[in-house]
This record gives sequence, C-alpha cells and structure tokens, in this order.
Amino acid sequence: MRLLEERIRKDGRIMEGDVLKVDSFLNHQMDVALFDAMAEEWLRLYAGCGVNKILTIEASGIGIACVVGRAFGCPVVFAKKTKTKNIAGEVYRTQVRSYTHDATYEVIVSRRFLGPEDRLLLIDDFLANGSALTGLVDLAEMAGAEIVGAGIAIEKAYQPGGKLLRERGLRIESLARIRSMDPDGSIEFLD
Amino acid sequence: MRLLEERIRKDGRIMEGDVLKVDSFLNHQMDVALFDAMAEEWLRLYAGCGVNKILTIEASGIGIACVVGRAFGCPVVFAKKTKTKNIAGEVYRTQVRSYTHDATYEVIVSRRFLGPEDRLLLIDDFLANGSALTGLVDLAEMAGAEIVGAGIAIEKAYQPGGKLLRERGLRIESLARIRSMDPDGSIEFLD
Repeated sequence: MRLLEERIRKDGRIMEGDVLKVDSFLNHQMDVALFDAMAEEWLRLYAGCGVNKILTIEASGIGIACVVGRAFGCPVVFAKKTKTKNIAGEVYRTQVRSYTHDATYEVIVSRRFLGPEDRLLLIDDFLANGSALTGLVDLAEMAGAEIVGAGIAIEKAYQPGGKLLRERGLRIESLARIRSMDPDGSIEFLD
Repeated sequence: MRLLEERIRKDGRIMEGDVLKVDSFLNHQMDVALFDAMAEEWLRLYAGCGVNKILTIEASGIGIACVVGRAFGCPVVFAKKTKTKNIAGEVYRTQVRSYTHDATYEVIVSRRFLGPEDRLLLIDDFLANGSALTGLVDLAEMAGAEIVGAGIAIEKAYQPGGKLLRERGLRIESLARIRSMDPDGSIEFLD
C-alpha cells in the first residue's frame, strides 16, 4: 500500500538492533486517518469473505483493529496480556514471545467471545518472527473459529514469521512488506 | 447517555468486590458501533472547544480513543505502561495505581507527542478512584498542554475520583454515571 510505505519512509526511524520506530503514527501516537485508509484496503482485499469478528492483541493492535472493525461493521476482541490467575475453563490461553522486550507472556481470550460461529480477521501492527500472530491463530483454533486471514500493517519480510504462517495455510495481507532496511536510513519494500 | 446505560443494564455483570464487568462490549470484546455513538456524544459536548489531540491510557482506553479521534479528526496518543528503562529526558512519566490489580505501574508518553500546542481530550473507559485519569492530567501538565476536558464511558460516581478531579477544575463528561450498584444485579444511574 503506497500510502503506508511513503509514510514509513517519511516518518519511520531505523534504529540499531533492527528496530523500525513508527511511534509517531502507528503505535504510540496514532494517525487514525491513516488507519481508515488501511481499513479500506483490507475491506477491499477481504471483500466477500464473510468476516464477522476482528481479533487482535494488546496493546498496539487495538487501535488499528477498532478502526477496521468499524469498516467491516463487526465487533473487535483483543487478546489480553495477563498475570491474573483465571479460573480454568473460563479462557483460552497461549504463550507469546516478545523479541523486542525479551520476554514471554501469556495471552488470554474469554471463551464467551470466540467460538465456531466466528469468521475472524486477525489484525496486528507488526509481523516479524510471527509469535504474536501465531498466538492469535492458536487462540482461534482452540475456539474452533474460522480464520479468514490476517491483516498486518508492517511485515519485516526478511524475518521468518510471514513465510512460516503462510506455509501453514494462513492468508496474510501485509500493507507494507519490508525487504531490507539499514540504520543509515535506507529501506526497500517488496512489491 | 441512554444508549450506554441501557447496554450496561442489559450486558453488564455486577460481581463481588464492587466490580462491574462490561467485557462483552467495552473492554475485551468491543462494540465499535457503540463507540461511534459515544464519540458522537462527546463531539456534541465538546463542540467548539478546539480539541486537536486525544490522550488515553493503555490498554482498554485505546479502542474508544481511536474511534473518538476519528470523529474529532485528530490523532490519538496513548500513555504506555512500561518497565523499560527509557533515557531520561525522552519521556514524561508518572505513576498510576490500579485498584483492580492491586499494583502501581509507571506510564510514559514520549515528549515528541505532547506539547504546549496540544488541546487535549482525555479518554478512558472507567473512572472510579481517578488514578488513571490523574496520571493523564499529570502527563499533560508536564508537557504544558491544554486540557479541554475528559470523556469517560462509565463513572462510578460513588467513588471519589470524579469529585476530586472536578474540584481541581477538570471538566469531565461521563456518559454513564453509576449512583449505586449491588451484586443482586440492581444498578442506579445519576441523571
């Protein structure tokens, strides 16, 4: 998606350690007008697929997912990071690894909000190693929900997550796919 | 706001320990169409006030805030809960007490995204003791931003947060103000 790629070139900051900072428009300050345009693009890509629920993960997926839910006319559920002891049987739970924060955390979704009647679009801001997105797939499968596909804002296409999950049969529509980036500021996108 | 009050009566669950669970439509599963109606109400209440940025707090404020930002046509910033050691001078930081989780955590906002040019509407899902909202006020004041007011979905009006912050001069527009509630399911709203 040209608009997002241009915005990344203009306002993204490439830091040491393979970090792309897009906190001025995507995941700290949020440009909701941009989210609207992204939602329209996913609506076009997933037209006729019968999406009836959006599933995302705390925290930076929530804003994008709500604008997407509005465009699709359906509710949004976010998987919660938790340390709370929930009663067994109340929630679906899985583990997600954060490479950015070098930590593993548990995420949960209440069983009341995911089930076999759901046709899910999974939304997140980044796809790199694929741990968060794999977590969402796990939760959806536990619930017996149908996964229509995933909508990712920025995919680091040189990292393994996208390839692994596509090989598992997941449709992934990433709006900006980074082929390579360097701390000198150069960034290349896949077509 | 009648629509929100009716929804709380219909789908809210009053639990032991003064807990009102609204996770089926507000802060786990999210009814984005309801958020749209809430945003329209705040847009009416804050018409002509020159709001140019929405400030909220991770995690359950983010979804509402994004729909509100869309209605106001302005960007959204969320204060992040963090354990990361940020370089001094890069962020504004304050402490927030969570009574629900019996924990105190630090929240931060990058100095790049809050400043004297900002006219802020503070958004959150709940107001009870007022700790989260006070944290947002603190961050805004550190940045020299103007606070136009706050938009709260549900205020527990029998708890002290709203009174304390209104006495400090903060305009607060809560869309549902609970006068009292009991575990037997009865709930009363203020006019």
